[in-house]
Amino acid sequence: MPLRTPAIVVNFKTYLEASGQNAVGLAALCDDISKETGASIVVAPPTPDLAIVASSVSIPVYAQHVDEVPSGSTTGHVTVENIKASGAKGTLVNHSERRIKIAEIHEIIVRSRAVGLGTIVCTNNLGVSRACAAMDPDFVAVEPPELIGGDVSVTTANPRIVGDTVRAVRSVSGGIGVLCGAGVKNGRDVAKALELGADGVLLASGVVKSMDRRATLLDLVSGLK
Amino acid sequence: MPLRTPAIVVNFKTYLEASGQNAVGLAALCDDISKETGASIVVAPPTPDLAIVASSVSIPVYAQHVDEVPSGSTTGHVTVENIKASGAKGTLVNHSERRIKIAEIHEIIVRSRAVGLGTIVCTNNLGVSRACAAMDPDFVAVEPPELIGGDVSVTTANPRIVGDTVRAVRSVSGGIGVLCGAGVKNGRDVAKALELGADGVLLASGVVKSMDRRATLLDLVSGLK
Amino acid sequence: MPLRTPAIVVNFKTYLEASGQNAVGLAALCDDISKETGASIVVAPPTPDLAIVASSVSIPVYAQHVDEVPSGSTTGHVTVENIKASGAKGTLVNHSERRIKIAEIHEIIVRSRAVGLGTIVCTNNLGVSRACAAMDPDFVAVEPPELIGGDVSVTTANPRIVGDTVRAVRSVSGGIGVLCGAGVKNGRDVAKALELGADGVLLASGVVKSMDRRATLLDLVSGLK
Amino acid sequence: MPLRTPAIVVNFKTYLEASGQNAVGLAALCDDISKETGASIVVAPPTPDLAIVASSVSIPVYAQHVDEVPSGSTTGHVTVENIKASGAKGTLVNHSERRIKIAEIHEIIVRSRAVGLGTIVCTNNLGVSRACAAMDPDFVAVEPPELIGGDVSVTTANPRIVGDTVRAVRSVSGGIGVLCGAGVKNGRDVAKALELGADGVLLASGVVKSMDRRATLLDLVSGLK
Repeated sequence: MPLRTPAIVVNFKTYLEASGQNAVGLAALCDDISKETGASIVVAPPTPDLAIVASSVSIPVYAQHVDEVPSGSTTGHVTVENIKASGAKGTLVNHSERRIKIAEIHEIIVRSRAVGLGTIVCTNNLGVSRACAAMDPDFVAVEPPELIGGDVSVTTANPRIVGDTVRAVRSVSGGIGVLCGAGVKNGRDVAKALELGADGVLLASGVVKSMDRRATLLDLVSGLK
Repeated sequence: MPLRTPAIVVNFKTYLEASGQNAVGLAALCDDISKETGASIVVAPPTPDLAIVASSVSIPVYAQHVDEVPSGSTTGHVTVENIKASGAKGTLVNHSERRIKIAEIHEIIVRSRAVGLGTIVCTNNLGVSRACAAMDPDFVAVEPPELIGGDVSVTTANPRIVGDTVRAVRSVSGGIGVLCGAGVKNGRDVAKALELGADGVLLASGVVKSMDRRATLLDLVSGLK
Repeated sequence: MPLRTPAIVVNFKTYLEASGQNAVGLAALCDDISKETGASIVVAPPTPDLAIVASSVSIPVYAQHVDEVPSGSTTGHVTVENIKASGAKGTLVNHSERRIKIAEIHEIIVRSRAVGLGTIVCTNNLGVSRACAAMDPDFVAVEPPELIGGDVSVTTANPRIVGDTVRAVRSVSGGIGVLCGAGVKNGRDVAKALELGADGVLLASGVVKSMDRRATLLDLVSGLK
Repeated sequence: MPLRTPAIVVNFKTYLEASGQNAVGLAALCDDISKETGASIVVAPPTPDLAIVASSVSIPVYAQHVDEVPSGSTTGHVTVENIKASGAKGTLVNHSERRIKIAEIHEIIVRSRAVGLGTIVCTNNLGVSRACAAMDPDFVAVEPPELIGGDVSVTTANPRIVGDTVRAVRSVSGGIGVLCGAGVKNGRDVAKALELGADGVLLASGVVKSMDRRATLLDLVSGLK
């Protein structure tokens, strides 16, 4: 598995507070916290900042999206090989804000593995999680859409979907990791996710919009223990 | 107009030969040639390399594509503001390999201007060029699809479309620049484009796939005089 | 111009109340009202009902959307030729709920004209209307998105956009008709649209959701005089 | 299972030879052959012809594609409910010429079942077949893209993928049927498909482009015995 687990994956989305120089700054902070605490933290900055962030930190950098097109005459797309060349270590796939076709997911998983990139395939419910697990990604990350960006963590609002996803994915293959996300904000949410069997969490605004990112990250990391 | 004209716009597409460290290298070469010759050269690297290239050269760096979505909860997209934050100076819009909806083109032109990014809207024929000019971008770049990536320059294969586009765009507004592309390979093609009234050229494989990029760029630049 | 103007175009959208047998029924009612009053009424039923509606009424039937793909190995799409074969007389293009790429709009206009289908290209603002007019459709139909489905007619909420669109489109070509839509509900709205220079209106819920469709249609038609 | 198996599913694609009046004619022929022979034949006409074909034959009529949007303000789309209202009995989902997002496939399967429509989810390889089976459609129809429209039947060119798909799908659920397609042309291909464990075939040009459709259909049907 290309990520050390349990892990905290911080998706910068396309927030201005985490774009350009702010992306480099937030990634550096995550890198510091990872070094200080030994926690496994992954960052997923805006696409234009991928290479510059990857060149400036030692924690794994992931893309937020990849297109299933070959490298070459595919202007304006982001290929598996472009991500690899940028220095990133993996990619989110099928994020709820950027869903893709099923045949694309399969092809991306196969090609990413071939070049040594990790894949975290995002899902919205148990049926889709089962389907994605059947395509053998490194991780399935379940995020109930109605809870994304909200104030209540999925681990509190719908702990059952976390446990059910863990069981469903494991029953397909013991080698696939499970992350959960939506509303995750603090160390307690992280601890609960692990307790439910997940290998980590995926979050965004909880870190990006925090008034004290260092304190928030330290709190989140405390939940990994 | 955010670009000094006449200009040569080098689209790196998603070629591996122009991705990651290769993107930085090719951009540096274009930067050198621009300094040596005084020519106006613009580079459009793969999206993940946008910020790192923008931080390493002094010529204008353009994105290859931008999504018409707001910054924030739009994971995996590239917003106008992300491009601005990356240090890039503008963006290609509606490239033939990444066509977008008409209302998106309009919105992107308006928002790019508001934040100070230049726009080069790509078109495939005279009707679409006229339509795009009506939305007032900085540049219209016409590229007949059947000639893209081919061995014969648009200026030889279809000089008429270049002249017609120049006249059509100018009749909408004298302030909109016109570029032409498809099959452009050498200084003669560039000179012919200017002779036909264009403000420059857009090319990709002619530079990226060249066995001697320095020689090719110097030849292209010679056509600007 | 393939439509007699002034005209009322009734978009059934995908409402259940106007789908299947309900589509046939509503189209028959519009046909009756047209015969009784001499008014020009056009109906745009759900796509699966296109042929059955076209075979049952004598007023023009329009598709709600067409894909820019060739006929043949394009399963699940709707081609220009499929629409023609269904007996429909034309098609909406780029409706705000089904926006398409600019090169597709151009191609659809050209191919529709070649086979004798009318085109009504929908737009969302003045810039996009100008751009669409430059591609020479039969009609431009402007509908400010913020007013669609609302209670206030575009002719009341934003009369200026109607007049501006009429002038902008006419300045491109006197042969292109202009429709307006969004919130149109009664004969006064229709009369106001014509007064502002439009050639008719495009509406949906005002008819489909009416408790007394006959009375509503008669009222709308009264505005054409 | 909403289809009687073994079955032959004839996809009319968007061929002109099977559009409009030609769609009605071809469907009537399939209906005749079904009555004469007792064979289970399903037809999937172009979308605009769905209701008129459904109203004219007694064999099951399927849509070629459905959009995962609600009925109402979704102009130009085809909803699950529109298909139901048209009189059709089911729909192809994710055809290789009209692939859709994974979350859409799941939602369409759930909603189609709720309203009593059958689903045939098309897949391109074993991994995607497994994933689709995990979402519990009525049928999985595997069609290797490189063989579609070709001269050699999948049952000859790649019998292994048929058998593997049958085993993979059955291992997920015994209640899901398996179809195979690509290059299927005659009764021998059909018989081989059943021999490999499939519940029927999906074909298009083999029937639509046949110089003698009656003879071709009778030959295909002979393979069901």
